[in-house]
Amino acid sequence: MAREQIEALRKAMEGHEIALCVIPTADPHGSEYLGEHFMARKYLSGFTGSAGTLAVSADWAGLWTDGRYFLQAQKELSGSGIILYKSGEDGVPSLEEELALRLPERGVLAYDGTVVSRKFGQDMRRIAEEKKGGVCLLDLPEEVWEGRPAPTANPVFSLDLCYTGESRKEKLARIREQMKKEEANFHVITTLDDIAWITNLRGNDIACNPVFFSYLILSLEEAWLFVQDGVVPEAVREELLEDGLQLCSYDHFFEKLPLICGHKSVLADSRKVNEQAWNCLQAVCSMTDGPNPSASMKAVKNQVEIENIKKAHIKDGVAVTKFLCWLKKNIDSMPITETQAADRLETYRKEQEHYTGPSFPAICAAGANGALAHYQPLKEGAVLSPEGFFLVDSGGQYLEGTTDITRTVALGPLNGRQKKHFTAVLKGMLALGDAKFLQGCRGASLDYAAREPLWAMGLDYQHGTGHGVGYFLNVHEGPNAFRWKLPPEGPETAVLLPGMVTSDEPGVYLEGEYGIRTENLLLCRKAEKNQYGQFLEFEHLTLAPIDLEAVDWAEMDERDIKRLNAYHRQVQAALSPYLEGEELEWFLEAVGAV
Amino acid sequence: MAREQIEALRKAMEGHEIALCVIPTADPHGSEYLGEHFMARKYLSGFTGSAGTLAVSADWAGLWTDGRYFLQAQKELSGSGIILYKSGEDGVPSLEEELALRLPERGVLAYDGTVVSRKFGQDMRRIAEEKKGGVCLLDLPEEVWEGRPAPTANPVFSLDLCYTGESRKEKLARIREQMKKEEANFHVITTLDDIAWITNLRGNDIACNPVFFSYLILSLEEAWLFVQDGVVPEAVREELLEDGLQLCSYDHFFEKLPLICGHKSVLADSRKVNEQAWNCLQAVCSMTDGPNPSASMKAVKNQVEIENIKKAHIKDGVAVTKFLCWLKKNIDSMPITETQAADRLETYRKEQEHYTGPSFPAICAAGANGALAHYQPLKEGAVLSPEGFFLVDSGGQYLEGTTDITRTVALGPLNGRQKKHFTAVLKGMLALGDAKFLQGCRGASLDYAAREPLWAMGLDYQHGTGHGVGYFLNVHEGPNAFRWKLPPEGPETAVLLPGMVTSDEPGVYLEGEYGIRTENLLLCRKAEKNQYGQFLEFEHLTLAPIDLEAVDWAEMDERDIKRLNAYHRQVQAALSPYLEGEELEWFLEAVGAV
Repeated sequence: MAREQIEALRKAMEGHEIALCVIPTADPHGSEYLGEHFMARKYLSGFTGSAGTLAVSADWAGLWTDGRYFLQAQKELSGSGIILYKSGEDGVPSLEEELALRLPERGVLAYDGTVVSRKFGQDMRRIAEEKKGGVCLLDLPEEVWEGRPAPTANPVFSLDLCYTGESRKEKLARIREQMKKEEANFHVITTLDDIAWITNLRGNDIACNPVFFSYLILSLEEAWLFVQDGVVPEAVREELLEDGLQLCSYDHFFEKLPLICGHKSVLADSRKVNEQAWNCLQAVCSMTDGPNPSASMKAVKNQVEIENIKKAHIKDGVAVTKFLCWLKKNIDSMPITETQAADRLETYRKEQEHYTGPSFPAICAAGANGALAHYQPLKEGAVLSPEGFFLVDSGGQYLEGTTDITRTVALGPLNGRQKKHFTAVLKGMLALGDAKFLQGCRGASLDYAAREPLWAMGLDYQHGTGHGVGYFLNVHEGPNAFRWKLPPEGPETAVLLPGMVTSDEPGVYLEGEYGIRTENLLLCRKAEKNQYGQFLEFEHLTLAPIDLEAVDWAEMDERDIKRLNAYHRQVQAALSPYLEGEELEWFLEAVGAV
Repeated sequence: MAREQIEALRKAMEGHEIALCVIPTADPHGSEYLGEHFMARKYLSGFTGSAGTLAVSADWAGLWTDGRYFLQAQKELSGSGIILYKSGEDGVPSLEEELALRLPERGVLAYDGTVVSRKFGQDMRRIAEEKKGGVCLLDLPEEVWEGRPAPTANPVFSLDLCYTGESRKEKLARIREQMKKEEANFHVITTLDDIAWITNLRGNDIACNPVFFSYLILSLEEAWLFVQDGVVPEAVREELLEDGLQLCSYDHFFEKLPLICGHKSVLADSRKVNEQAWNCLQAVCSMTDGPNPSASMKAVKNQVEIENIKKAHIKDGVAVTKFLCWLKKNIDSMPITETQAADRLETYRKEQEHYTGPSFPAICAAGANGALAHYQPLKEGAVLSPEGFFLVDSGGQYLEGTTDITRTVALGPLNGRQKKHFTAVLKGMLALGDAKFLQGCRGASLDYAAREPLWAMGLDYQHGTGHGVGYFLNVHEGPNAFRWKLPPEGPETAVLLPGMVTSDEPGVYLEGEYGIRTENLLLCRKAEKNQYGQFLEFEHLTLAPIDLEAVDWAEMDERDIKRLNAYHRQVQAALSPYLEGEELEWFLEAVGAV
């Protein structure tokens, strides 16, 4: 017997004469995290992981997800009648292959065109055409999802100039300059972090990301901001109007898009704009396909943002330090679960002024759990034992910026191999943090600095070394990154510029044994300029002790020790004023100051 | 009064009603070094540098060259009536800009289509079209160059399997496999190193490069090798016929090209094939534009080649070591000029078995001359003083392979800054040589290893860190290289593969003071394979002492010293058997063995 939600969907499909329905995990804005309203795949399938695609026909249902979620999906899909397709495993057909097989001749394939990319839409159309069938762009889950939560419509608020450092008028002027250069008289923006940055507004419609559901259309003179009804307070509305931004209803976007942009030359990013909007634009406009100018603008933080970010990192560092102190002092004397640890850390962050919440779901992983890249404890999680490693990857949203820090600490005695691995990760993190380089360099040319000590030992971490970080915005933000795989194998990494913030997070993951990761955020800044060009360097933004108990000093050469000491002196100077008593005492010892 | 060669050219132009004539520095094969026959620009202008383009109208003549040659060109063009255009200098128009300005309405622009790239031809046509004029593809210099040397037509010889490790039949089979994959039934090759590699033939038509003037056309069954009449000895001709290669006359290539390839699907590299050949092909064939399969095949040396290359480096190392010993022992007691030093080094190389000549014109530069990247002494060059640095960048061609080595030695006491710089260069060279990395890595991701110690000091060298090297072929060979600038700023650097040979040559150049460069060739080879993938590493091929007298030991950390010692132990083990008496004694001390 199939799950009732699937049966309901099948009934709806029958009514529309739809042979196959595909439900991805996505929203209209290409968001990394989703609001509840957009979790149709979770509702229909019962699988709660953050990635996966469901496909349903009259007599079959399948769910594709990746290695992170095989075990969880197996468990959650049990008894649902939905077949699990383990993406990437040998012999497992891809979604496209299976759909091509299962779509009958002249069959109709349905999906919600507002939540998929243009590329996805093109794939679906190709599959349907091969069967002489068609596609139907329809939000079918809407018809069957009883009690579907409306999109959250939390109030937006205006971020003061003392936080943003640049008015929305100035930002709009810069973007319009770029539009002129690209000979576009209109520009359509659908990505929520771009819109929040441009408008200097923040919201709370997606967990961990202080964004609000919206679309933005700019002409060279006018601007239309589509937001949900009632979310913009009167005072903010007046501010926006004064700055030339008129408000429209979020629900009217698709209807107004062709009316506003028709017959114009429109700049938009086909990799970001959802299929329905793109098709609508393409039908009536002359398109210039390129990245949103705001994407690279917001990556370069201005002086006000930088000063704020440094304040945010002091607050975050105090919270993390208090947490580490509590953990180290209590691990031997009381049972602590992974979830309790995470809660404790959150409590310390909440004590900080202007803290608005986590910047992503914290990863608190004891022992072997640390080897799972996206570990989330179920319920309470494991109880920490006074041995091996504990890995904490977490971050906060503050009015003064977004943080992201990973520390791996020893909960008890470590063996030689554990210390060697911890030290190699540390050396790599410090080496990249200490890199000096000529402007023009991309993250791809520096990734080796972090990976070198691990590669030398025949180890690797199968993720990038670092990602860009927004300002009181998304914790994962392009276009800057540290990656060693170059196109065509990997994504492009932007030229590094002063003001960019990028994470530096090498690691070691041994399945069934332990995981180690040490992560600091790095601010790119100018060093000297001479006949060779402008040199750039990094400054550690993240401020919290590295666990000296986990270091294998024989592996640390003079330069490594100098780098570690310099970092700890920076941490000591920044955090000491905000700690006292036992915590200060513990801290000073932790940074090797006593 | 203009130079008589220019006046003769003008008369010929008048006869053909040509308004502008352009003479580049190039041959039909895109060669780096030119045979005398192709040095029309030098003959006409009197400028002897290795790079430059001459353009002539009835009442004007201009020569474009780059920064390496400004002084030399100024001197050599003096009194010629030819204006020097310093390429890249502020306010200096480019060749294309000046031609566009000077070409009269409906004027005809002439150049030899057999010696320019397709891109150059397209630029010329665009300029002519804007003036409603035309282009005329004509080797005008031929009409006016009295006593023009015929293209050299030295005998070719067949390289035995004990040197090549792969028969031409096997190579042809591999290339044809690739042709099938790219759905091409014909393949046209015009680059001399590719042809030499594929046919296992070598020649002597271009100084330093053991190649011969030729073209090669392959079908899936047949092969047509175009060579100059009389250069293939009878025995070789029979060998070639047996392997399915029929010989045609070099002079008949352009005539036969459309007859052989007409209406076929042809694979050719538009960045390599000259304009005339490309246009001819494009008119009658269906073109697949892509790199010659042989380009990446020959970059990966086979086991036989690798074993031979190691032998070549022992011989070359013995010659360089003897030279360094002689230099160090005599610098205080006799006047030595740069040219005498170069001759001495050549003498030592000539003592080695199977040495056929230099792989490029040696750079022997004392003191400040070392700061000029492409320094060539005029006549005798400077006399070496027993102080500062002497930089020697040279290489040899052996039947067993091609070498390229740079050593910078102290001729007397050095100051602290000189030693610091020498040491930073050394650290960088050793760090790259010691790199271990995952397969998939490109040179662009490793360049930082060599540059890091210099960038850390705010220094840089304004050239790539390394280039690929051929097997008894061209000393500069793609597609592997170490470069930090990624596309679109820089050229692509290929994925590094076991068997590739790449130079590792960081440097410091202080104008008017001194230049330092230390260069070893590195062989890429497999290291361990594990769950992360196949690791690769390098092996130093170049074998010669690094001058310990120039090292600042305070700048060398434990790892640097370990690397230097390991390298010197390798050099000691390899060369000791071939040295004796005073030279052996000096050598053992030089590598720190006593």
